[in-house]
Amino acid sequence: MSDADVDVAIVGAGLAGLAAARAVVAAGRTAVVLEARDRVGGRTLNEDIGDGKVVEVGGQWVGPTQFRLLELARELGVETFPMHVQGKNIIEWRGALKRYSGTIPRVSPLVLADVQQAMVRLNRMAQRVVLEEPWRTPDARALDSRTFATWLDDRGILTKGGRELLELTVQAIWACEPADVSLLHVLFYVKSAGGLEALTDSEGGAQEARFVGGSQRVSLRMAEELGDRVRLSTPVRRIGWSGGDAVTVGDVRARRAIVALPPTLTSRIDYDPILPGHRDQLVQRMPQGTVWKCMAVYDEPFWRRDGLSGWGMSDVGPVRLTYDNSPPDGSPGVLLGFLEGDHARRAGLMPPAERREAVLDVFGRLFGTPARSPERYIEKSWAEEEWTRGCYGCYMTPGGWTSYGSALRAPTGPIHWAGAETATIWNGYMDGAVRSGERAAADALRALDALPVPVVA
Amino acid sequence: MSDADVDVAIVGAGLAGLAAARAVVAAGRTAVVLEARDRVGGRTLNEDIGDGKVVEVGGQWVGPTQFRLLELARELGVETFPMHVQGKNIIEWRGALKRYSGTIPRVSPLVLADVQQAMVRLNRMAQRVVLEEPWRTPDARALDSRTFATWLDDRGILTKGGRELLELTVQAIWACEPADVSLLHVLFYVKSAGGLEALTDSEGGAQEARFVGGSQRVSLRMAEELGDRVRLSTPVRRIGWSGGDAVTVGDVRARRAIVALPPTLTSRIDYDPILPGHRDQLVQRMPQGTVWKCMAVYDEPFWRRDGLSGWGMSDVGPVRLTYDNSPPDGSPGVLLGFLEGDHARRAGLMPPAERREAVLDVFGRLFGTPARSPERYIEKSWAEEEWTRGCYGCYMTPGGWTSYGSALRAPTGPIHWAGAETATIWNGYMDGAVRSGERAAADALRALDALPVPVVA
Repeated sequence: MSDADVDVAIVGAGLAGLAAARAVVAAGRTAVVLEARDRVGGRTLNEDIGDGKVVEVGGQWVGPTQFRLLELARELGVETFPMHVQGKNIIEWRGALKRYSGTIPRVSPLVLADVQQAMVRLNRMAQRVVLEEPWRTPDARALDSRTFATWLDDRGILTKGGRELLELTVQAIWACEPADVSLLHVLFYVKSAGGLEALTDSEGGAQEARFVGGSQRVSLRMAEELGDRVRLSTPVRRIGWSGGDAVTVGDVRARRAIVALPPTLTSRIDYDPILPGHRDQLVQRMPQGTVWKCMAVYDEPFWRRDGLSGWGMSDVGPVRLTYDNSPPDGSPGVLLGFLEGDHARRAGLMPPAERREAVLDVFGRLFGTPARSPERYIEKSWAEEEWTRGCYGCYMTPGGWTSYGSALRAPTGPIHWAGAETATIWNGYMDGAVRSGERAAADALRALDALPVPVVA
Repeated sequence: MSDADVDVAIVGAGLAGLAAARAVVAAGRTAVVLEARDRVGGRTLNEDIGDGKVVEVGGQWVGPTQFRLLELARELGVETFPMHVQGKNIIEWRGALKRYSGTIPRVSPLVLADVQQAMVRLNRMAQRVVLEEPWRTPDARALDSRTFATWLDDRGILTKGGRELLELTVQAIWACEPADVSLLHVLFYVKSAGGLEALTDSEGGAQEARFVGGSQRVSLRMAEELGDRVRLSTPVRRIGWSGGDAVTVGDVRARRAIVALPPTLTSRIDYDPILPGHRDQLVQRMPQGTVWKCMAVYDEPFWRRDGLSGWGMSDVGPVRLTYDNSPPDGSPGVLLGFLEGDHARRAGLMPPAERREAVLDVFGRLFGTPARSPERYIEKSWAEEEWTRGCYGCYMTPGGWTSYGSALRAPTGPIHWAGAETATIWNGYMDGAVRSGERAAADALRALDALPVPVVA
């Protein structure tokens, strides 16, 4: 035991892994973080757009109740700025283009009432979820036996328009289709965020603010602090844990390990001995979502001159939601659009030029001809990334929570599991990632404290 | 190109991989099969029970319409013998133990009529599935948006008893729960087998006959024929395919590759370049089922003396179905019971002694006190096997077929995909495995024929 290189070896230098390392070091223990890529940040990644400015091709927003992320950013000196929401929003709906103010899109009052009703019911159902153990929720098995699509079919929604808006909501939150996801998982996730509005809204919700200099800075700053404890370009292919209180993570001998990866990737490492079947089968049931994040960069945010906020919605697609993603000073102008769920899956099979064309066509329809000719076009699908394989995160397919949920956070021998998908608060979000890393670190520290004191030779 | 070691390198020496190699060699091309384990057969495995006799801890049965498997076995000199079905069947149902003859269990006529009705409807719905492209089935999206549990809830079944019998059917066929699987997948699978009865029945169905000397002999005989083309204990960790018409499989340079693994395992290999996101995300949605196959070996099949067939059913469980699995000459006696779906998941978390006790308790209730004291107890869960990770096979979660189905058999560059899960006829069965290997071989051979003739140096 005394020949361990470190107390805790951590796999993955995303927000979860770095937050875990930080917590371990703060407790006076030693840590090393092994990262497959040549950079830190995981699913957060800044893209340089010149003049020292960036856009993010991964996670970017922070909401007012994401306390751990906000606190961490503040400690690290990473500031936030409000999302640009000034001006009128625009919606392409049933063949017409309409402008409107506020958060309520200009669709028929019947549709709005229908959606409102559905949201109230979803929030009410979500309240009953047991966050720490969703499988103990009243009626858990029934809720987990059906897809969200079934809930919509059965009684969730009455109008065709309302259904489209809720489908869009699912695509926007999970980057999957209502067919793909367990109803129980939807309810768990809603409660985990504090309500459906917290997930969908800009002002007051998860899309309220952005990080100055880009969200990746939170990870970059943590990595700076951790110094040479973070080893880049070091994929961990093997974890050996046969030796009781010892674990070998890649080449590093440690006393505990924290694996801070998207669940679906955790089984792509070779474990010796292998993981229990229950744990392996859990992650077989947690697929990653699918999203192309597409941005067009213009001289200036010309839509603002037209009185538009840049926030748009389309019932035609393939981009269904757009945002003004310009830097804090509004220069250059950046329009952001998402292809999500089946739109993203189809887009992934297109030649890049065709995909770009499809995206810019939506921008053009919503914001006028100039939107069709950006100075630069940027797109990213994390499904094409070996070390992520999808975005925004992994969700539970039906049956997953009730048959396998208990394996999600339970340590396997000296191996602890972190990552946004293991969080109980803001599951799937940057805030959840930070919380999950800190929780796994606390678990590992507790285990270290319980170990016999090493005999110094 | 002329520096390739072989025409086709095959990953996995299960039935699919070996059948593929056999077809490649028969066409006058060269092949090598790389197998991670120190044996061939994949999910078929003989277990020695003394006196040169075996039982199978993996797939074992063959049905009358499994033509390719039957033909192959005949060619290889592996004979079949009928499943033991003589005597009365026994059912533990609603607290009582009842014996009966024939295939119709002694439950209330109302329940029987309900189940019969449901089966007729499932068979009728299955008829409409487009086997080669299930996503083109009429109403495919609607069928794929719900779980089989939802179908049962909504209109599939009226009686509580009928529901239990259909749940048991799902557990027995897919080793999962009705909550886990897409309705479209259930219908696809039913059609692929030629009807629900073909899946569930012994006489006339998939459990009609067994192989003399054990099912693994089919693979062992193929491997004998292939000789040193089969390399054991050679896990393939990496497939390189950047070089156009060349592919490097482990250490072998080939012109085409066939990966004959359960889909969920195919993404645990490192590919260079990496696989397209669409392919990777497909297999994230194809989890393996969960089953413990449990056998008790006795001096003799004592239940036969009592006029019992060994076929039993229980509504208590955890073993829900039992079979007489004695060797052809009836000595020793072997009782076989399955723990499937959630029963298997729970059993996997038990200490081995407790699991054994739970299984033998069912055998004891059904077949009397002697059943509690076997000479030997054998159990196997393929979820605990690094190179399989579940059984009987991978199924599609909701949304999988319609969003990703086209990636299941489509080659990725020079890489072809085989395995029972890629079959259109008898998907998931040994017969489907053989067919899938032969189909992949035909695809690879066609591709080889289309390549320019190598310049011999």
